[in-house]
Amino acid sequence: MARIEKLVVVGVGLIGGSFALALKEAGAVSRVVGVGRGAQNIRRALELKIIDAAGALDAPTLGDADLVLLAVPVGQMQPVMHSIAPLLGVKTAVTDTGSTKQDVVELARRELKGSLSRFVPGHPIAGTEKSGAGAAFARLYHGRKVVLTPLKKSDPGAVALVRSAWESCGADVFEMKPKEHDAVLATVSHLPHVLAYALVDQVARHKNAQQLFSYAAGGFRDFTRIASSHPEMWRDICLANREALLAELKRYGKGLEKLRSVLERGDAKALQALFSGAREARERWLKDT
Amino acid sequence: MARIEKLVVVGVGLIGGSFALALKEAGAVSRVVGVGRGAQNIRRALELKIIDAAGALDAPTLGDADLVLLAVPVGQMQPVMHSIAPLLGVKTAVTDTGSTKQDVVELARRELKGSLSRFVPGHPIAGTEKSGAGAAFARLYHGRKVVLTPLKKSDPGAVALVRSAWESCGADVFEMKPKEHDAVLATVSHLPHVLAYALVDQVARHKNAQQLFSYAAGGFRDFTRIASSHPEMWRDICLANREALLAELKRYGKGLEKLRSVLERGDAKALQALFSGAREARERWLKDT
Repeated sequence: MARIEKLVVVGVGLIGGSFALALKEAGAVSRVVGVGRGAQNIRRALELKIIDAAGALDAPTLGDADLVLLAVPVGQMQPVMHSIAPLLGVKTAVTDTGSTKQDVVELARRELKGSLSRFVPGHPIAGTEKSGAGAAFARLYHGRKVVLTPLKKSDPGAVALVRSAWESCGADVFEMKPKEHDAVLATVSHLPHVLAYALVDQVARHKNAQQLFSYAAGGFRDFTRIASSHPEMWRDICLANREALLAELKRYGKGLEKLRSVLERGDAKALQALFSGAREARERWLKDT
Repeated sequence: MARIEKLVVVGVGLIGGSFALALKEAGAVSRVVGVGRGAQNIRRALELKIIDAAGALDAPTLGDADLVLLAVPVGQMQPVMHSIAPLLGVKTAVTDTGSTKQDVVELARRELKGSLSRFVPGHPIAGTEKSGAGAAFARLYHGRKVVLTPLKKSDPGAVALVRSAWESCGADVFEMKPKEHDAVLATVSHLPHVLAYALVDQVARHKNAQQLFSYAAGGFRDFTRIASSHPEMWRDICLANREALLAELKRYGKGLEKLRSVLERGDAKALQALFSGAREARERWLKDT
């Protein structure tokens, strides 16, 4: 286990904060400096001992860091990368937690310049619908997958450091191409988020929305849990992964049309086949995970 | 609290079994007789003391019952009603737990004949994705809503008995017209079930389904929990409430098309407005429940 002397977390929310807490709990980091736009959130992170000090996007904070974790919404990634590029130390490794990878890699190529070889794009597949430092907890990544999408020119030492850090958090680390990552996540994460937001929107637009909500039960609650996710973050994810998400949305729309025609002609057999097949696929998945 | 001397539960699964257990725990019933197609499930219900005896759709079982609960899938309701109609005692009240009410009322009008006035259609809005007697538990209905849709000719004594039984289970009882009930449930329950089944189906049909599932996380798990629901039961519900469900599916399809065009033109503002609005509506709902 590589010990990190100084970790800088840019964006001390659920994701960045939990990374810091997990590394602290594992004894894998000596000092954590947090950088964030919200003074109140940074104070909370200090109180909760998620970070040891508050820093800024400046040379004293970044120049001697071993690792910088960029855990800001995808939409803030560009200005952050632009700011840190000239300030990073020659040994500082940088990674991110963005939910999409093609756009982050493109940004990094444009903004990180001399530090690009020490950038290791990453995505921890974990989270809850909550946000902010107060939501962070050390075990968030335990048993979860983290995908790294290193570039051809990525420094092996930087990749090893980032991998080791995530493993210290209890995560299983995998490597993929950025495009493959984005296609996979469009299907199993971005699409369901959009579908959940769309359902709540539909209920809320009904004339008798209040009555409808009052009869919503546990199934509705779980189905829509992800519709309580951070709207700004999910707006950015959807826009960043627009192409893959549009393809999945189109596919889903076609699936619903097929389902409607099955229902319209009252085809009990086809309906049951679809439901049974889906249930079996889901049960197999649960057994495998 | 009206005490029930003899309760007959037809269909001793999660719903019927939990009703029996809750009434027993409340001391609201003396004797429960279970009727079911599956010998193994009935044995399990006896072992678990959900029922005190196994019965059949015959005069000895039904003739002296105070209350008969029909907790069979909607698709089995017709033959069951047809069988019990000539066997019910003159004081026996009958209720059901069907997730749709217009079709059940129609069936009852056709099948229950002389006993129709003692039939009180009902729907407990509770459940899990599990099924069978082994899944039953006494607190399933605690704090949950039960909708009764009595007919004009329903006997007030029968309505009071059924209401009191559900209240003994800890449920809050409401009355509605069958059509109103079905429209409400199409939106907040039947639609999300169909959407969840459709998503799992879509993932399972991908060439790289195994890889996709391996990266599915907590959001996917909760969103699709209801896709582990009983396929036969949900096939019947969808067919029984076809018209209302089709209307909601159409509305949802239109919503997705709008969302796709928002994404296609990269309209960040519209996307965030939709996501924020949905999150706020969901948070309000959670606070109110």
